[in-house]
Amino acid sequence: MTPTDRPLIFVTNDDGVQAAGIAALMRLAAEFGDVVAVAPNESYSGMSHSITMQRPLFVSAVSREPGLEVYSCTGTPVDCVKIGFDEILRDRVPDLVLSGINHGSNANVSVVYSGTMGAATEAAMYGLPAIGLSLTDHSPAADFSAAVHYAREVIGRVLSCPAEQRKGLCLNVNVPNIPLDEIRGIRVCRQTRGNWREDFVHRTDPQNRDYYWMSGRFCNEEPEAVDSDEWALRQGFVAVVPVQMDLTDYARLDSLRERLDTGN
Amino acid sequence: MTPTDRPLIFVTNDDGVQAAGIAALMRLAAEFGDVVAVAPNESYSGMSHSITMQRPLFVSAVSREPGLEVYSCTGTPVDCVKIGFDEILRDRVPDLVLSGINHGSNANVSVVYSGTMGAATEAAMYGLPAIGLSLTDHSPAADFSAAVHYAREVIGRVLSCPAEQRKGLCLNVNVPNIPLDEIRGIRVCRQTRGNWREDFVHRTDPQNRDYYWMSGRFCNEEPEAVDSDEWALRQGFVAVVPVQMDLTDYARLDSLRERLDTGN
Repeated sequence: MTPTDRPLIFVTNDDGVQAAGIAALMRLAAEFGDVVAVAPNESYSGMSHSITMQRPLFVSAVSREPGLEVYSCTGTPVDCVKIGFDEILRDRVPDLVLSGINHGSNANVSVVYSGTMGAATEAAMYGLPAIGLSLTDHSPAADFSAAVHYAREVIGRVLSCPAEQRKGLCLNVNVPNIPLDEIRGIRVCRQTRGNWREDFVHRTDPQNRDYYWMSGRFCNEEPEAVDSDEWALRQGFVAVVPVQMDLTDYARLDSLRERLDTGN
Repeated sequence: MTPTDRPLIFVTNDDGVQAAGIAALMRLAAEFGDVVAVAPNESYSGMSHSITMQRPLFVSAVSREPGLEVYSCTGTPVDCVKIGFDEILRDRVPDLVLSGINHGSNANVSVVYSGTMGAATEAAMYGLPAIGLSLTDHSPAADFSAAVHYAREVIGRVLSCPAEQRKGLCLNVNVPNIPLDEIRGIRVCRQTRGNWREDFVHRTDPQNRDYYWMSGRFCNEEPEAVDSDEWALRQGFVAVVPVQMDLTDYARLDSLRERLDTGN
């Protein structure tokens, strides 16, 4: 491909290269620039920030048109970002990285389990601006039109940010599954506190072995917090949470130093 | 098993139930209380916070002795925690969760990719105190004696914390791969800033398909930061970083609200 003066947009997801959500996102991205997409060959939902260390990765070109290159990779979303940046793009540096549009919410602590957000945060660790986009509808045939409308708005605003503000910016964008004209606007929020508890579905296979299907429910510890992403979604807003990957629990540092530091 | 008055210690890892590191950790945990271990049936290194959504989980008892129950699970480290808490332990609540001892460092941003730390942070999201332990030696036959010595010290101090300080406490403990008498002590640190870049090993298989092995190197953005975990390890200290899973980038909230908020 011959480089152009248009912005370079890197696209990935966790639902797989064939998903409707990434098709919608690639079409949208092409409005803003040249697109290179590297996405998993199958669903890697729930794969978080995982990387493939036990087996090699296979990559194949799905399509190569001017302004739109699409690759399929046998790895996780984070693998797709890494092989996309370090092996496929090499010296071409994306102006923006988009991940999604995910079939299902990645609000609250779901951000931690999400392959969509794993890919977005990985890109941000390379210093690039990244946006993970999710629609709160798990259906493979979900209607992405409202999500695309708001994704277009967020992408335009991020691309118009000064470069120093874009560096390492990572947004977790969740769009409520309601008609476009019922969405009330965009709210920048923080991640809702809570956790996922599991009600495992327990069955026995024909060889009499027990097996379990994971089946979780989110326990919201702060349903009334008006600055939380779950609250914003429930009120009909698009929830935007900026995320970062320094996991240090700074609030505990001083008391732990008193309790644990030894030697000199 | 009949419950006892001893503390209940839950143990897991990401190198698999057969690894030398978890064997050392189970022996150590038994000094402090009754042990229930649920660990992957094979290596799940690099699996981060991933959960298994595409297939069911199989669980089998490896051993059931008084004070030591060990289970093998066909899922990720986070799956092991979830099925351990919600299906195996049920009403028994662990006093402490231990993950490791990992064969290899989980310092710096490696914490994000680590299955060992995925399990520890999952336990902390249930409100429990959790310690992820790693030795900076990838060898399957690594010498864990120094790591066990310092793990014993950290576990003892965490168990003696007041209950309100233990709630949701999560520690990422990395032990340098040097002889015990050369370790200078324990340092509470913050996560080193930097990222992992990949030099993929590119080969061609007998069917002429290209494949790639991931092969990364950590790029330390702050090698001289004396409060960082990489610095502490290099100086011969055991590095202890408290971690938490609210990924919100609070520093960006206000400027993003001005740029993105719409509607009312």
